[in-house]
Formats: sequence, C-alpha cells, structure tokens
Amino acid sequence: MTMTAMTTLPLRVPPDEADPPRPLRWAVMGCARIAQKNVRAMFLSPWARLVAVASRDQARCEEWVLQHVPAVQHSEVRVFGSYEALLEDGDFDAVYVPLPTTLHEEWVSRIVAAGKHVLCEKPVGCTYASVVDMIRAARAKGVTFMDGVMFMHHPRLNKMLGQIFDPGCFWGPVNRVSSAFTFRADEQWLQGGDIRARASGDPLGCLGDLGWYCIRIAMCCFGFVQPEAARCVSFQLNADGVLIDLTAEVYWKNCEPGNVTRPNPVLHFHCSFLHSFRQWFEVCGNDRRITCQDFVLANTDKAEFVLERDLGLLDKATQPCADRREFPTFDSCQEAEMFSSFAKAVHGQQGTRDFYQLATLKTQAIVEAIAQSQKNGGTLVDVPAAQLP
Amino acid sequence: MTMTAMTTLPLRVPPDEADPPRPLRWAVMGCARIAQKNVRAMFLSPWARLVAVASRDQARCEEWVLQHVPAVQHSEVRVFGSYEALLEDGDFDAVYVPLPTTLHEEWVSRIVAAGKHVLCEKPVGCTYASVVDMIRAARAKGVTFMDGVMFMHHPRLNKMLGQIFDPGCFWGPVNRVSSAFTFRADEQWLQGGDIRARASGDPLGCLGDLGWYCIRIAMCCFGFVQPEAARCVSFQLNADGVLIDLTAEVYWKNCEPGNVTRPNPVLHFHCSFLHSFRQWFEVCGNDRRITCQDFVLANTDKAEFVLERDLGLLDKATQPCADRREFPTFDSCQEAEMFSSFAKAVHGQQGTRDFYQLATLKTQAIVEAIAQSQKNGGTLVDVPAAQLP
Repeated sequence: MTMTAMTTLPLRVPPDEADPPRPLRWAVMGCARIAQKNVRAMFLSPWARLVAVASRDQARCEEWVLQHVPAVQHSEVRVFGSYEALLEDGDFDAVYVPLPTTLHEEWVSRIVAAGKHVLCEKPVGCTYASVVDMIRAARAKGVTFMDGVMFMHHPRLNKMLGQIFDPGCFWGPVNRVSSAFTFRADEQWLQGGDIRARASGDPLGCLGDLGWYCIRIAMCCFGFVQPEAARCVSFQLNADGVLIDLTAEVYWKNCEPGNVTRPNPVLHFHCSFLHSFRQWFEVCGNDRRITCQDFVLANTDKAEFVLERDLGLLDKATQPCADRREFPTFDSCQEAEMFSSFAKAVHGQQGTRDFYQLATLKTQAIVEAIAQSQKNGGTLVDVPAAQLP
Repeated sequence: MTMTAMTTLPLRVPPDEADPPRPLRWAVMGCARIAQKNVRAMFLSPWARLVAVASRDQARCEEWVLQHVPAVQHSEVRVFGSYEALLEDGDFDAVYVPLPTTLHEEWVSRIVAAGKHVLCEKPVGCTYASVVDMIRAARAKGVTFMDGVMFMHHPRLNKMLGQIFDPGCFWGPVNRVSSAFTFRADEQWLQGGDIRARASGDPLGCLGDLGWYCIRIAMCCFGFVQPEAARCVSFQLNADGVLIDLTAEVYWKNCEPGNVTRPNPVLHFHCSFLHSFRQWFEVCGNDRRITCQDFVLANTDKAEFVLERDLGLLDKATQPCADRREFPTFDSCQEAEMFSSFAKAVHGQQGTRDFYQLATLKTQAIVEAIAQSQKNGGTLVDVPAAQLP
C-alpha cells in the first residue's frame, strides 16, 4: 500500500505550484447559501476577484450582492438575471457553481463550452457517467475543473499527510480510516424544505453532501489508491427517497492477504442529516493513529490534528502509554486557500489539473458504488478504476 | 426510548448500595495476566481480601504469588496446586475466574455448586445458553454472579449517565453509539500464542474479549433496553477460525418510525487485535454528544468524558460553535471499585444482583447474535430478549 501510494500521491496536497501571474476573475452562478462564504473567500485570496453574480431573479441577485459582497467590491461586481445572460457576457475567467446537483451537468457543460474554468460544488454529479462527461469536456476545451472540497487546500492536510507518507515518519501501512460528518436538520428541512433533501435537487442526499468529504479524506490517507469495492451498511430515506442517514464501508486491496497481522484496509463512515454536529476522522496505522475533530469546517484560529503512538501498557496493564503530539496550524482560511489553489492550477502544470480531476472522478465513483449498494440491499459493489477520460 | 430506559435503568451504575458488614474473602482461580491487576485491586479495595490462589501448577502458583501479591499479604494467602483442591478447601467467600472462556462453564458451575460467589472474566461464556445455565445455577444457589467489566464501577460512568438520563439535562433520545476497542498483537500472538487467539481457549476472539466492552457501554447509554437485532459488517479470522478483527452494528427499536427527524438507534463498533491501541466511544443525541477516549482502561489520575452541545454555525457557516464541557473524575481505581461493588452486591438488595446478571445475559445475547451473523455471511440476526432464568 505504501509503495503504491508513493507513486500515485502528489508530494503535497494541494500540489506545489508557483504563484499565478494575476488573479482569476470569477463569476458566481446562483445565490446559494454556501456561496456566501466563498464570495468572502474570493475577497480574502490574493488570486481571486469577484466580477459577476448571476441568479434567475435579477432583483434577488442585486439584494444578495449588497448583503454578501464586501462594500468595497460592489462597483466591480456585475449582476445578471439569468445564467444564460452571464455566459453570453463572458467577461470573466472562471465560474463558481453552487447550483443544485441536478443542474450541474447542464450548466458545467455550458460553462466549459464557453471556455471558462469551473469550480463545482460537491457532489459534482448525480452519476459517475455525468462527471466523466463534464471532465472529458473540460479537458477537451483545456479549462480547469475542480470540486469545492475546501480541506484539500488547508495547510493542515499537507502537514498530516507528511506524517503518514514521509519515509522518515515510519508510519507503515494505513489500516483504517473512520469518519463521521453529520448535522441535525429540522423536520421541514428534511421533508424537502432544503434542496439537499429533494430528489429533484440532490438525489444523493447526505451521501453526496456529507459523505463526499469522508470519502475524500480517506482517499488522501490511502494515497489516492482507488478502492476495490464499497458497501452501504445501513441507511434512512425521506419520503422523497433521498438519503438522510447513511453508514458505509469502502474496501481497499489487502496487499498481504496471507499475513495474519495485516488488517484489510477500510474506510468506515457515517453521514447524516439526523445527528448532532460531528466532523471527525481517525486514521489507524500499526502502532499509531491520527485524529481530527474539525476536518470539514476547520477552526480558523487553530486547526489541529493529533498523532498518538502506542508505547504499551504500564502499571499492571491498566495504564496505556502513548506519545501524543498536537500539530496546530494557525489562522488559515481554507476557502481562500481553495481559490488561491485554483488560480495556481489554472496557470500551473497539467499534472496539477489532472490530480484535481482524478480526485473528483475517484470520489464520485465511490459515491456511485455506495448508492448502488444501497439500492441493492447492501451488497458489495465494485468501484470503477476511475481514469482520466 | 427515554421513557422505556427510565423504567429499566437503575438510578445509578453501579447501583447504590450500603457498605457491606465486612470484606469478602477472595480466591483466584488461575494465574492469568489479567489477575495481576485484580489482585492489586483486592488489596486497594477496603471490601476485599485475597486469601487463596489456585493454579494447575503449585510451584508456578507460589512463584506468581511472590511476584504479584503485595508482600504484606503473603502470610495470609494460601496456594493450591489444582482448582479442585481449592474448592475442596472452601475457606473463602468468592472466586475470581480469569480462566480461558472455554473453561468457564465447568468451573463456574463447580464454584457455584460449592456455594461461593463468582466474579467471572468476560466473555462469560462461549454461548448464550451456557451463560443462562451459569446464572440459573447461581440464582438457585443464592450466590452473587458478576462479570469483570471494570468500567461499570468507575464513578465516571454514573456521572456520564446522569448527563444523559437526568430529566434536568434535556438530553433527549440517544441516537447512536460508536465505539472502538482495539490493540495490535504480534504474529505469534495472533497465531494462537495467546489464549484469546485460540479456538480451544476463546472461540469468540476479539468479539468476546474487546467487543464485550463496546456492547456494554452502548447498553448503558441505551438504558439497558435490549436491542432488536445485530449484524456483523466485516471481519477477519486467523487460521484457527478465531475472530481477530470485527466491525458490527446493533439495532434498537425506533419508537417513532414515522418521524422523519428520528434516526434508528444504533451501536456501531470496531474491535480488533490488528489495529493500534484505541478505546473510545461517542454517544450522539439530537443536539449533543459525549465522547470518551479511555473508557476501558481509565486513566487513574484523571478520567474524563466530554460533553459537546451544538450552538450552530457562525461566521458565514464556517465556524461551528459548541458548548464544550469536560467532566473529570480524579484518582479512581476502577478495578478496586469493582471489588467494592461486588461486596456491596453480595450483602445488598436482590435488585442489585439481578441488575448485574441481566447486564451479563444481555451482553452475551448480543455477542451471540453478532457471532451468528458472522457465520451467516452478515445477515441481520434477532437478539433474544435475555430475561433472568
């Protein structure tokens, strides 16, 4: 596992890239709630400038800009009353897409056709095939495509992966990743008041909205080696057939099946709209583990992970002893880092753009296998290899 | 769930009992490693006195006493070269049984027949039926029977259950318990070098040895309401067919299946001899959770649990806000507390003895359902109601 990982994993996540020559000029397609923080992030990143916002309702869009865009930027942000009008104008470099998932396929393909770069919220598509199409189109047109997983751009991730993959750290194989990302929605929300609970908006429900992150962090920890199979362990649907609670497992190949000491590498995760707020993961090796309690919405003041290494049991085997280290990162805004990473990827090496596309493809492939397993009554479903189209 | 729990749960775990009139006089049957800490615990408890140790090898037993029993006690501890000789002597009140699980049925029944109380290591039996027999015999003879789950006697548990069940705490339903108890054994150990990896010693492997604790802590959190069903999610066996890694789920009845906001109550746990040392649990309610990182081998200096209550998202939904409280318990030795609880149970009310027997029966019933599911390829298996025989 370790060796395979080494050959696949970029040395750093985000990949190391030089500063771009100039900031990217951004348009936002849709006034979703999640766009609020990303509009602020564009303001905080030295490599992003917001220049346009489009919505299906011009008046609402103008109101939204007044409310959520910093006042000093109002003069340079143009407002469009339809997505078509935005694309016809075309005076921007990239589009941020926080639309409902069911609209991604149509609008990403139109943005790409217009020759613009795309930052697309997760889940990227309703199906794996649609994401292959989006990425094929982006590659054909030579535009950058990335999904909106903020933690990929937080300096904490790279620091943590260094503890796992740097040869001097002696981590050994990654045996298990556990993760939970849940929050508690109210009844109205769960019955379709929110787009994420509507089959017409986000048919993958909590799997696409929350599980996406659990899968992605595991992929980082397993060095972006694609797993072999996945399975839905248990789930709940709302009346619209949307997943509102899901437990799943994802299985990687055991490279030493004959070695009794080697566990099968696995991701176990829980994502749900029904439980109290949790956003943790735990990575287990042979003699150590890493834990993180805020992996999706990182604490901006001080974002930590904790590494504990077993030192055995003391005091008649009643007191476990461990070397415990906290690794803090201070004052980082991961959303702003995401927009900086994006600009660097646009002007950087092809390998960097490939990496982000592959990360999206592999994640969507796993999501699809789990969704399939849920429909099949929890059977084991093969995960496609997920290569660049 | 909450109401049912209230009527079943003792107000305190351990149940509140008066001090016994005198210490119990203990015999230890077998010089297992785990007996070392419990012999010390007898020394630390004001309500226990060690008076005899038996082993199949008199010389080894004498050596063991010299090594592990405090010197001031050597004069009052008698040594026996066989378990039969110990029982024939009979000059003690209770027997602590750390024997391999496959020997429990025979020796517990002989101890009970001799009219002595029994503290039996977990897993109590290889089968649920054998445990029903042991407890039926103990009840017929009027002796106390308890399993060796130390954390049941730690003051931390009662403090934590108060946060969940005291009406003034507004916890609401317990929705999910997650737990992991794992350690990493070496190859020789896993291939049967240790009794827990041998079908002839502990056929339930990590499920009986480690999963027992995960199940028990969940039962405490679900107010000792018995679950409906259980399932093995994934597992690994050694060449002897013993479980060395297991992930399982246990399902409680959803009392409001028509309420879209109500998740199905579940325990999810991982127990393994293949992973780095972990001993945590997490209990989720609607708007809060409790976590504990040392629930099996409690830190003696300061044993904590942490309660976090959601307060929503701040700062454009990037910063989760929670009320976080640490509840410490200082300077407690849970093994010593266990021997004190045992003496109190012997001299206390029948309800207290019933409670411990029920806890054992219910735990073994769940263990058996999971073991059955593992043999059946992961099917859902009903959990028996587990009533006192």
